[in-house]
Amino acid sequence: MNPVEIIAKKRDGKKLTRDEISYFISLFLKGDIKDYQMSALLMAIFLKGMDYEETGWLTEIMLYSGETISFGEPRNLYVDKHSTGGVGDKVSLILAPWVAACGVKVPMLSGRGLGHTGGTLDKLETIPGYRTNLSLNEFMSGVENVGCVISGQTPEIAPADKAIYALRDVTSTVESIPLICGSILSKKFAAGPNGLVFDVKCGNGAFMKTVETATELAINLIGVCKAMGRDVCALLTDMNQPLGYTAGNILEVKESVDALKGNFAPDLYRVTIELAVEMLILAGISKNRETAVSLLETKLGDGSAWRKFEDMVAYQGGNLGIFEYSEIPKAPVIRQFKSEIDGFLQGFETEAIGRLIVDMGGGRKTKDDIIDPLVGLIFHKKIGDTVKAGEMLVEIHSRNNTQADDVALRLIKFIKIGLDKVEAPTLIKKRLS
Amino acid sequence: MNPVEIIAKKRDGKKLTRDEISYFISLFLKGDIKDYQMSALLMAIFLKGMDYEETGWLTEIMLYSGETISFGEPRNLYVDKHSTGGVGDKVSLILAPWVAACGVKVPMLSGRGLGHTGGTLDKLETIPGYRTNLSLNEFMSGVENVGCVISGQTPEIAPADKAIYALRDVTSTVESIPLICGSILSKKFAAGPNGLVFDVKCGNGAFMKTVETATELAINLIGVCKAMGRDVCALLTDMNQPLGYTAGNILEVKESVDALKGNFAPDLYRVTIELAVEMLILAGISKNRETAVSLLETKLGDGSAWRKFEDMVAYQGGNLGIFEYSEIPKAPVIRQFKSEIDGFLQGFETEAIGRLIVDMGGGRKTKDDIIDPLVGLIFHKKIGDTVKAGEMLVEIHSRNNTQADDVALRLIKFIKIGLDKVEAPTLIKKRLS
Repeated sequence: MNPVEIIAKKRDGKKLTRDEISYFISLFLKGDIKDYQMSALLMAIFLKGMDYEETGWLTEIMLYSGETISFGEPRNLYVDKHSTGGVGDKVSLILAPWVAACGVKVPMLSGRGLGHTGGTLDKLETIPGYRTNLSLNEFMSGVENVGCVISGQTPEIAPADKAIYALRDVTSTVESIPLICGSILSKKFAAGPNGLVFDVKCGNGAFMKTVETATELAINLIGVCKAMGRDVCALLTDMNQPLGYTAGNILEVKESVDALKGNFAPDLYRVTIELAVEMLILAGISKNRETAVSLLETKLGDGSAWRKFEDMVAYQGGNLGIFEYSEIPKAPVIRQFKSEIDGFLQGFETEAIGRLIVDMGGGRKTKDDIIDPLVGLIFHKKIGDTVKAGEMLVEIHSRNNTQADDVALRLIKFIKIGLDKVEAPTLIKKRLS
Repeated sequence: MNPVEIIAKKRDGKKLTRDEISYFISLFLKGDIKDYQMSALLMAIFLKGMDYEETGWLTEIMLYSGETISFGEPRNLYVDKHSTGGVGDKVSLILAPWVAACGVKVPMLSGRGLGHTGGTLDKLETIPGYRTNLSLNEFMSGVENVGCVISGQTPEIAPADKAIYALRDVTSTVESIPLICGSILSKKFAAGPNGLVFDVKCGNGAFMKTVETATELAINLIGVCKAMGRDVCALLTDMNQPLGYTAGNILEVKESVDALKGNFAPDLYRVTIELAVEMLILAGISKNRETAVSLLETKLGDGSAWRKFEDMVAYQGGNLGIFEYSEIPKAPVIRQFKSEIDGFLQGFETEAIGRLIVDMGGGRKTKDDIIDPLVGLIFHKKIGDTVKAGEMLVEIHSRNNTQADDVALRLIKFIKIGLDKVEAPTLIKKRLS
């Protein structure tokens, strides 16, 4: 085997063997295969693709390049969820404790904000004391004893993915389905889940803008997981408007707390419970949708889901006092953004709204930026709602008046009000398994 | 402009602008664009291609990355030839002085052996004292005063090509038509010719094995040159057997000396004179094939071509004594390889014969190998010739008996003798302009 021949093989559209992928990645990690050879291979993979089996091998090799967690029996109890990312997507915060309250074990390694999308870790870190840097032992023990943990990747997890991702970012090889699958799955499976539910976001606030591209990604994720012998399914869910009522770190945690106490935005409820149903079925806890929904409603209604969230936060060192016993801290300037006319809310420029929140300080443009947890937007109207002139559309939580002015000016372009009634988007667009 | 976007553009099959190529290459040479980004772009070019105009820009940018030579008027007098390489291809040694004797100015920067093919510089260096490392000034002055010079690339010529070629070699991006065109042409035009005649070798001893692939390369070389405003044409010539009677460094110089004195192998004569005709026409010295052939025959017959060779060798410090006044030095063991049967010579494994000569010491496997000038093969029969049992097919010039035994054993497989008469291959397969 030699690196030049392996690159040529993929360049010519041929299927690599497990041994060839393993050889290439292990020598790359040792420094014997150079960055410029890896980037040539990545571009060849980008342009020539990889089949499910190949991508599965790539995933396993990246996965086992670092430490991995193994849980005991019954293995199918351990189920995680992965979202491809959107605006206002606080589902993980609610879903993990909710299904854990039903008996699922949720080992959730989560990430930070990427591009225009928020990050679960950034949100959780607005809870005073909450640690997202658990050791692998703390992580495992939390999953076993609490039932769910949401923490960040440790450096020991999938180092091959980290090294390869850094190269992809500077060589225009990010948007490759096999490379995306390998990157997502190697990190996810390193944390030890047996099953995985994908929330593939779809719409103008998602990375996949159309049902077609989202379906393609979902089919590939599922195909690779099946090739790896894993139990998975995927829901394509709407991302043509921010999910729930809020976008912005502390605002989203507050919304999640409210949801776990039973006060859900309807779209957030629907997306979360459908994903929860899939997790319960994968875990073997519920036989079908009806029994799963019934169990979930019980555990939400009797406060078990909320108490599981409290337990998880306490385990990870967090203090929920500001969310429970007092008002959450507020951004310095709160401004109402109102409609100029009577009509209907017809649409959001959702990705632009995500970028707006990043610009406000709610996300990072470079890795070293510090997030402002307080800034964000509260949406009072959603697509299809009637709107009256002078009625509030969005509450802007901003750092100062200048920022509030700027945000208001930009929101005029990002929220479309018109005279024709528009239907609310279908929330669950597809289920694939 | 940024490197990641330029890579993405080519990755998506779009045409780069001159400015984008220039930006990318100049930052690469400064070290601001990294090897791994260049190799990703090279793989994208390999897989997505470049049109003639784009390849022309790439060529010019590589060309002007270093020093270039400019000759005076009339510019069209300056014409060079480029061969894609074969076995026994000593055409340059004969062609350059022959056309120079007719008035063409030949600024020929030549290369060393590559893979299974011999190198013009390696051959010329068997002439005692011959310098292939002329400075650019010596090179220019030789072209002006002698009429032809054959020397090696200086480090100042096309440094971008050198840096890029080193990467292509280790990233499986060598066999890309636009990259091959850019590399060949940037080096050739740096030496200042206005016109260029391509000898695109075609057959089992060439890089291009079929007329189709050779035609594709020829069309691309011509298309790029036209886009650059250069006068060019191409001949597709046969490389299904070694050209002429010899392969091996000193043997080929001796054959060239004989040819310049009028003793030509028929195939070598035909290929050389057809290329010479094209050069004379491009230079504006002859109007058509008939007048060109007549002039060439005169200059060969009256000794002018030979004297031009003597002048060039003398200018470059060489001494032709061993070729003129005595026997050339011979390899220690000379062995006759004979036919076992009566029949016809039906074919050669020409590339394998090229590799055999490299293995004998006549070429390099690594850059640091030292060439043995004396080893080689003299072919007494060519395709289509009748052969009798016991008749000599090849004279093996080898280092020792063990090597001679080994070569003889391998030649049995590489030369096919059969009962059916076979036609000699068509020498000039196509002319393109």
